[in-house]
Amino acid sequence: MQRVVIKLSGSVFKQPFDSNYIKSLCESFISMLNDGIQPIIVSGGGEIARSYINIMRALGADETTLDEIGISVSRLNAKIIISALGDYAYPLVPTSMDEISLALTSGKIVVLGGLYPGHSTNATAALVAEKSNAFVFINATDVDGVYTADPKVDKNAKKYDQIDTKTLFNLVTSSPIIAGSYDLFDPLAIKIIERSKIRTKIILCTPQNILNSIKGVSVGTEIVIK
Amino acid sequence: MQRVVIKLSGSVFKQPFDSNYIKSLCESFISMLNDGIQPIIVSGGGEIARSYINIMRALGADETTLDEIGISVSRLNAKIIISALGDYAYPLVPTSMDEISLALTSGKIVVLGGLYPGHSTNATAALVAEKSNAFVFINATDVDGVYTADPKVDKNAKKYDQIDTKTLFNLVTSSPIIAGSYDLFDPLAIKIIERSKIRTKIILCTPQNILNSIKGVSVGTEIVIK
Amino acid sequence: MQRVVIKLSGSVFKQPFDSNYIKSLCESFISMLNDGIQPIIVSGGGEIARSYINIMRALGADETTLDEIGISVSRLNAKIIISALGDYAYPLVPTSMDEISLALTSGKIVVLGGLYPGHSTNATAALVAEKSNAFVFINATDVDGVYTADPKVDKNAKKYDQIDTKTLFNLVTSSPIIAGSYDLFDPLAIKIIERSKIRTKIILCTPQNILNSIKGVSVGTEIVIK
Amino acid sequence: MQRVVIKLSGSVFKQPFDSNYIKSLCESFISMLNDGIQPIIVSGGGEIARSYINIMRALGADETTLDEIGISVSRLNAKIIISALGDYAYPLVPTSMDEISLALTSGKIVVLGGLYPGHSTNATAALVAEKSNAFVFINATDVDGVYTADPKVDKNAKKYDQIDTKTLFNLVTSSPIIAGSYDLFDPLAIKIIERSKIRTKIILCTPQNILNSIKGVSVGTEIVIK
Amino acid sequence: MQRVVIKLSGSVFKQPFDSNYIKSLCESFISMLNDGIQPIIVSGGGEIARSYINIMRALGADETTLDEIGISVSRLNAKIIISALGDYAYPLVPTSMDEISLALTSGKIVVLGGLYPGHSTNATAALVAEKSNAFVFINATDVDGVYTADPKVDKNAKKYDQIDTKTLFNLVTSSPIIAGSYDLFDPLAIKIIERSKIRTKIILCTPQNILNSIKGVSVGTEIVIK
Amino acid sequence: MQRVVIKLSGSVFKQPFDSNYIKSLCESFISMLNDGIQPIIVSGGGEIARSYINIMRALGADETTLDEIGISVSRLNAKIIISALGDYAYPLVPTSMDEISLALTSGKIVVLGGLYPGHSTNATAALVAEKSNAFVFINATDVDGVYTADPKVDKNAKKYDQIDTKTLFNLVTSSPIIAGSYDLFDPLAIKIIERSKIRTKIILCTPQNILNSIKGVSVGTEIVIK
Repeated sequence: MQRVVIKLSGSVFKQPFDSNYIKSLCESFISMLNDGIQPIIVSGGGEIARSYINIMRALGADETTLDEIGISVSRLNAKIIISALGDYAYPLVPTSMDEISLALTSGKIVVLGGLYPGHSTNATAALVAEKSNAFVFINATDVDGVYTADPKVDKNAKKYDQIDTKTLFNLVTSSPIIAGSYDLFDPLAIKIIERSKIRTKIILCTPQNILNSIKGVSVGTEIVIK
Repeated sequence: MQRVVIKLSGSVFKQPFDSNYIKSLCESFISMLNDGIQPIIVSGGGEIARSYINIMRALGADETTLDEIGISVSRLNAKIIISALGDYAYPLVPTSMDEISLALTSGKIVVLGGLYPGHSTNATAALVAEKSNAFVFINATDVDGVYTADPKVDKNAKKYDQIDTKTLFNLVTSSPIIAGSYDLFDPLAIKIIERSKIRTKIILCTPQNILNSIKGVSVGTEIVIK
Repeated sequence: MQRVVIKLSGSVFKQPFDSNYIKSLCESFISMLNDGIQPIIVSGGGEIARSYINIMRALGADETTLDEIGISVSRLNAKIIISALGDYAYPLVPTSMDEISLALTSGKIVVLGGLYPGHSTNATAALVAEKSNAFVFINATDVDGVYTADPKVDKNAKKYDQIDTKTLFNLVTSSPIIAGSYDLFDPLAIKIIERSKIRTKIILCTPQNILNSIKGVSVGTEIVIK
Repeated sequence: MQRVVIKLSGSVFKQPFDSNYIKSLCESFISMLNDGIQPIIVSGGGEIARSYINIMRALGADETTLDEIGISVSRLNAKIIISALGDYAYPLVPTSMDEISLALTSGKIVVLGGLYPGHSTNATAALVAEKSNAFVFINATDVDGVYTADPKVDKNAKKYDQIDTKTLFNLVTSSPIIAGSYDLFDPLAIKIIERSKIRTKIILCTPQNILNSIKGVSVGTEIVIK
Repeated sequence: MQRVVIKLSGSVFKQPFDSNYIKSLCESFISMLNDGIQPIIVSGGGEIARSYINIMRALGADETTLDEIGISVSRLNAKIIISALGDYAYPLVPTSMDEISLALTSGKIVVLGGLYPGHSTNATAALVAEKSNAFVFINATDVDGVYTADPKVDKNAKKYDQIDTKTLFNLVTSSPIIAGSYDLFDPLAIKIIERSKIRTKIILCTPQNILNSIKGVSVGTEIVIK
Repeated sequence: MQRVVIKLSGSVFKQPFDSNYIKSLCESFISMLNDGIQPIIVSGGGEIARSYINIMRALGADETTLDEIGISVSRLNAKIIISALGDYAYPLVPTSMDEISLALTSGKIVVLGGLYPGHSTNATAALVAEKSNAFVFINATDVDGVYTADPKVDKNAKKYDQIDTKTLFNLVTSSPIIAGSYDLFDPLAIKIIERSKIRTKIILCTPQNILNSIKGVSVGTEIVIK
């Protein structure tokens, strides 16, 4: 069975939850499954994760513990997706690679959150793409691709249709990115994509974009392995 | 070691989180521990729990699954308390009676959320009081005791200084209580208090009230076993 | 796949075990499965559970621990049913809702015991009916329905063909029921049936009654949701 | 801390449970702990185990599954001992060597049942003696030592004060021993005692004998390693 | 589905690993699966296990701990087999009978290592054959059957075509076998074969021998139950 | 209690194992513990890890699975250290942050291997330093510090006494580092050190260096946070 990994940006779970948007995304996943492609969904943490992280940082928690609370919230978000998918979804949220391996044998849509402290959900999703031998990894986020600068800040920023991993790595590591402000790929995610040559696209998270990105329609930014 | 179970109403965790309030509550717990009493804290779910419950109900989840998501959120809230307690707290959130038994042997403050679907966190806290042989069970909530009617609705409602379990049971089961609107004791919690004759107080959740309720100062409503 | 939850009274497991009776019950479950209905069996504890509860109470155990030992025995009883079902059964006894969800995906007969201290196996079975979206919940016990009084004590007791949840609640909570003497529904089980409008029947535990209660033949007492 | 492993024959748990006998045994364990010796108790299965084994064998279960149900019952028996020991006991029944290692660090009395299918509880107890570096392994059973023949059958059977492992091995493997009838050491238990040179005694299970066997008073049969 | 248990001698995993040999063995397993027989593979520990056992014994570890490290290495070896089998294999290495039961329901090739300290992997494999109701248990080792003496030492040693369990037991227990030098059946493995009358063959580990031993072609030594 | 994290390079575990070297390292850890500092040891994988990784890559395993097998081997190496430490060590190898938190409460030396695929053991050790609030993180490796180039290749390479994280990041990411050939810090480990300002030293792995690096004696290369 062909597989695709789709990472849902935390922005999908902004408050108040938008049930129509979530339903429409889930319909696109079910449509894939009906076409014989098994989607693996990796949910981000988003606004509620940041709320827990902020209060716990204020109370003195260390950074690993903050990563862990973010992971916990992303798993709650995964349960929302599972509810919306009903019987099309594997009923549990896997919390390790072993559990993911088992879940995949069900032939159902598998939905998870983060896995490991120190990892962005992007890096986690890249590892899952590697483990599941996915033919493409879709990073569905709140911008429509990778830009030469942060498009929310710089009006002259231009979108890349394609970007190679070396350029992306420099973009990601050279500019002072504030955590949470512009959720691009991190170095670890790029390294994993590189080592396993995983076909990757960064798109704006809409049902239509998700379906198009699977079908080979040009959308967002494609990462080219170098 | 003497033990006390303190159930924190979900209202402690209303948005945005109030770090000063949470810190002051935690200082009262640490003060108890320094006096040789081991506090066991049971966190409720509150506003964020309701947010997840609402979206998942809208998406078609069954009631047991909604109970479970509420439990998951109450465990995140427990982690906030653990962060604020630092080294005074047992580092993990127990998720079963066995894990609670182990946690108690640490001599540290033990913090948990809900345990079982179908149980209110009040009933869970009562079971934990039973299991840990606590000398008193404090139900710290957003009203200052049990009233003859809902004090938020009925201005003539009078507070009980003491109420027996039989009267409380009738109060709880006879009036049409809407879930989440007035979080009194449920029948199961009352049954557990009765079967093990657990000394129980319902108080407004403030650090001072919590400390007073342990010291035998009259505060809130005391439940008398019949 | 349609599902039915069948709660087996602890009396099914009275000493010495009756292998013919157990086999005949299991044949009725297999017959259902062959008709495309997935049975979920919840075993009670019965005589051996009481034996362990009595010795441990005599030795000073708290009530939660006694609930837990009763649950442990009910899980041994579940293993008896699994042995009798052979390959028709899911091979493990689930001990949480997550494990039940996984077990159900096997399409086999799922057999469990109790789940949570503080819960009767009736309440547990009601939760499982809710979680599994069962179309009917059969409470197979050692009386042939709900009576106006305990039929073993009061010769004039009359059986209800139907009883609404409000009347049942009053019946269950008003009379002084001694634990284990007359195993009717408890308040929590009734609350769960009500909140999810689960179709429920209380029948004498025989293979024929079990099969009839699924097919809509009138047998025992039907609980009507109010 | 010095440690002793005491294997309690299943006969300690014959029906109906004898709370006075169990209490008196537990007092001997507490007395040891007060003397600075950590007891590790391994409970057998006994009558109730045989009851479950018989019904499940009648229903077609394989021998490994029967071993497993026997282990499950021996763990219930362990919980009886834990109840009687109260705070002197580690609160959980360890089910693996890792859990035993953790339990031992508590400094409390550790109580377990069987561990592995294919192993007698004697063999399990011998492994635990090895793992915990116990200075003596007491096999407390329903006969007062090893005899030249089954003393219940052969009136001329003579008790050994000492027996070497080679002779014991021949005794155990040459005669047709019916399972459950005369619970001597099995070949695996002997092999483990040999490989780690564990000091071992077989005694009649009474509080006085248990205390004496620790203190070096001659009681029962001592196994000499060859 | 018919099942076969194949125990792979640790010699399969001698250093450096021989990928062609391992591949060819795996092709024989896949060939069985394609013929409708589910293979269960039990990997031994071999050279690397001995390396860890030796260093840990030198550093003072007890024998149970050494058994455990050997089991851990055998599970790594099981992962090698799983890698070679790809999608034909159940993706995880089961570590308990419950996990084996679940794994078997996948219909895939199940690969494990050792399970319990005190057990040889031969005894483990025999238990698995019992639990899985395998029609034959193949002990694939580095000699081509059972000899009257160790064929590596005694040139006049003669191979048995058949050997009964009684004779095998005497052979195994009477001669001074040094651990690891001549990996025949141990007493526990023989006892398990006897109690469940498991058809058993000891063969030289080659793909052709494995396939032949399933098909009833005479190869190696067959153990006859007495 | 003050804590130190010490990452042991895989080269500590090269074949054949060197029991004297391992013992001498362990004596330095015990010496720290006696001085009131709790060491947390993170073992690398080394030669045997590479052996498993090579055979499994040859057989077609994906990179995440290869990371996992490396982690498994590093945990076996951790067990060697635990054996050498005897009662000074926490008896189990933690496999998650929760297990590490629990292990630390024992006050004993905690020994682990890798934790997460995608992470080097350096990154894992940095996370553990963060979580445990260690006052210093010692990276004990097979070179005596960070050089301007690989000292095994370039004779003119000069050692840094201090290096800032920015320079180290460039060094690590700009040169074509072949996996396993020169085990410096990876980008993720650097990021973690930076975000939590963890004092870090890279030293040649000898007992004397380890003790000196704790005491503030200048040894190896110190990483300066920028």
